[in-house]
Amino acid sequence: MWVQEVDNMPEKGDQSYLRSRNTARILESLRQNEGFSRIDLAELTNLDKKTVLNIVNDLLAKGLIRVTSRQADGAGRPKEILGLNGSYGRYAGIDLGGTHLSGVIIDFAGECIASSDIEVHNGMEPDTLMKLCVYLMGNLLKESGLKEYDLSGIGISFPGFVTSSQGSVSSENFPKWQNIPIQKMLQDRYNIPICVDDSSRLMALAELWFGKGRNRRDFIVADLGFGIGCGIVIDRKIFRGSAGKSGEVGHTTVDVNGPLCTCGSHGCIESFAAGWALSRDAQIIIREHPDSLLRETGGNSPEGVNFRQVILAANLGDPYCAALLNNAGKYIGIGLSNTISFFNPSRLIIGGRLVQNNEILLKAITGTINSNCMKQILEDVEITVSELGDGASAWGAGISCIVNAENLFFATLQKKES
Amino acid sequence: MWVQEVDNMPEKGDQSYLRSRNTARILESLRQNEGFSRIDLAELTNLDKKTVLNIVNDLLAKGLIRVTSRQADGAGRPKEILGLNGSYGRYAGIDLGGTHLSGVIIDFAGECIASSDIEVHNGMEPDTLMKLCVYLMGNLLKESGLKEYDLSGIGISFPGFVTSSQGSVSSENFPKWQNIPIQKMLQDRYNIPICVDDSSRLMALAELWFGKGRNRRDFIVADLGFGIGCGIVIDRKIFRGSAGKSGEVGHTTVDVNGPLCTCGSHGCIESFAAGWALSRDAQIIIREHPDSLLRETGGNSPEGVNFRQVILAANLGDPYCAALLNNAGKYIGIGLSNTISFFNPSRLIIGGRLVQNNEILLKAITGTINSNCMKQILEDVEITVSELGDGASAWGAGISCIVNAENLFFATLQKKES
Repeated sequence: MWVQEVDNMPEKGDQSYLRSRNTARILESLRQNEGFSRIDLAELTNLDKKTVLNIVNDLLAKGLIRVTSRQADGAGRPKEILGLNGSYGRYAGIDLGGTHLSGVIIDFAGECIASSDIEVHNGMEPDTLMKLCVYLMGNLLKESGLKEYDLSGIGISFPGFVTSSQGSVSSENFPKWQNIPIQKMLQDRYNIPICVDDSSRLMALAELWFGKGRNRRDFIVADLGFGIGCGIVIDRKIFRGSAGKSGEVGHTTVDVNGPLCTCGSHGCIESFAAGWALSRDAQIIIREHPDSLLRETGGNSPEGVNFRQVILAANLGDPYCAALLNNAGKYIGIGLSNTISFFNPSRLIIGGRLVQNNEILLKAITGTINSNCMKQILEDVEITVSELGDGASAWGAGISCIVNAENLFFATLQKKES
Repeated sequence: MWVQEVDNMPEKGDQSYLRSRNTARILESLRQNEGFSRIDLAELTNLDKKTVLNIVNDLLAKGLIRVTSRQADGAGRPKEILGLNGSYGRYAGIDLGGTHLSGVIIDFAGECIASSDIEVHNGMEPDTLMKLCVYLMGNLLKESGLKEYDLSGIGISFPGFVTSSQGSVSSENFPKWQNIPIQKMLQDRYNIPICVDDSSRLMALAELWFGKGRNRRDFIVADLGFGIGCGIVIDRKIFRGSAGKSGEVGHTTVDVNGPLCTCGSHGCIESFAAGWALSRDAQIIIREHPDSLLRETGGNSPEGVNFRQVILAANLGDPYCAALLNNAGKYIGIGLSNTISFFNPSRLIIGGRLVQNNEILLKAITGTINSNCMKQILEDVEITVSELGDGASAWGAGISCIVNAENLFFATLQKKES
């Protein structure tokens, strides 16, 4: 951390610095683990007991943490077990996907209070989308019993680039979402802090806080859906790159002579295997193969067919759709092998809408990684499937509000280069 | 840093921690910049003057820094300008390459005192190589006028994996270098600390300390030579991955139907464009094209031809060799585009033996990156060619001794996962 501080406005190396550092250490310990008393915290953090007592009392007084239970421990006074205080704040998270809007409300401890989901399509006008966001927020507030003024922030997960510090967004896969000032639009409507970030990165944040990345130092999350990206965690921090655009595995080339991609290049992973590419190829199946089950699951409409219908047909035994998923899995597997070769992670977590109920694809992905990846690096990585389901990025968007609004968990998000 | 500390043996958040942190901050400032007085250091580091005076006096007394000059500044006493004290220690660095052994001796300030170079080939027996290392060390000591006991450490740069904590090494590209305990062999001979690390990573370390990565937070170094790798710097630290195997861009797949690679896979970047792949293809040119200049520069011996002879022939106008380099540049360019898409670096530094006197290759690489890389990420990266020349990895190996032996510049090397 400190080299960065030398460049910008370096923090004073004094008592107040120590205090904030030690406070963050205690909060982070309580976030990562349950069931700690003050004595446990002192042992775990290697801070002296007096320091821990002072900081804990301060955090209790401010309402950031609470006593979750009391443990009788022999003769003495029962030990107070501490935890983050959920009711300290509530935060909404909304994931803008190519096929869905997903929303959650979480509390300061990260627990999910409400969740809701709306089907959309990637050709929607930004204004329509904004109306749907507000509608979704209404559903979430209703489900949770909260009012707008109960929320401390809204996080937005967007599948593309955040193109300005004002939170405008653009995406290759959403033709009408170019330089849309989404942060400002929501800020004007709700008048609370709005955070906007890339959906793969927020998926990784959700895994880091509550998923298979919990308590791990480094891992990669493959975000497979309408588009393809990855979230990268290094030393427990979300790695953003120099301008917040890291992890574009979907637009890495694996075949210079491959199909045209939405980014203008040829043979990117996305051009073979993204949700949008599967829809493209599914149209061909419907047109050319009258015996394909996709005509049933896809409603016999080439234009409207989506990747969920392909997965369903493949699961029902359709050979054309199964072949399509197998081929997609091969290219995703190559892209993820390359990812592993670059980062040498200890864990790869595969998630996103494309892998829900999709054993055929998962098998093709892991098979390709196992046969394609350099064995010396493959031996270091454990490959696993996310358990957070469809809502991971929305959850991550909510968590990003906590991280940004409270500025207490300073290790979680890598600062942008100034 | 601190989350890592929570896991292992966390540092105490107390005065001694503050002191070592502030000491490192001052040393790092003096390493990165020249011409600082005590007052400048206090401003730059945002530490209070008394803290800076205490630490500076301590470092002067221990001989780690010295007064490099005095600046008269108006009426008062002249300001003392401080710098690292080169004579505090001397360190050797040796790069074991597929075509060369390169060695340097540097001082604590990183200045090069001596350098030497021997041609080798990648089929050499480990024992022969050890003898050549000792011979090269003799040359370096002679040139510098130093004795063995003047050295505080030897750093070894190896183009492959360090396979054990005891410093054994293996490489795909050097058939006889499998699990060779190089650290122990040199330790037995010299009885001083021996550091062993990957050559691409050490090249990045040299760029970070003295090259085009100086004072930059994040960058990638493409190490193009007999093999191909990359060194990755994130937040001024060398990124190692979970087991010290990061940056294997040479073994990322860009064409599943491509040539067989030394790693056992097909269509890796190396299989098209590494020094060894160019030698392979150069043999075909010699055999099939009697009119090729390579028959002259390569000594008309298909078996012994190397990539330097290919570069020379191309520079003399040989169309076959020029086409070979153009094709190699295209594949390297794709691999580096992919690298940029993953890391979103602010700078890409291209270095290694393959780009020395090789404008044809460089032009093909940059042309491909410019046409292939996603434009939104391309706009963030500045592409530049290293100025450190052939000896960069050897220099980095010497620097790694300073980093490891003194344990003072703690931000430079990312700790391994425990």
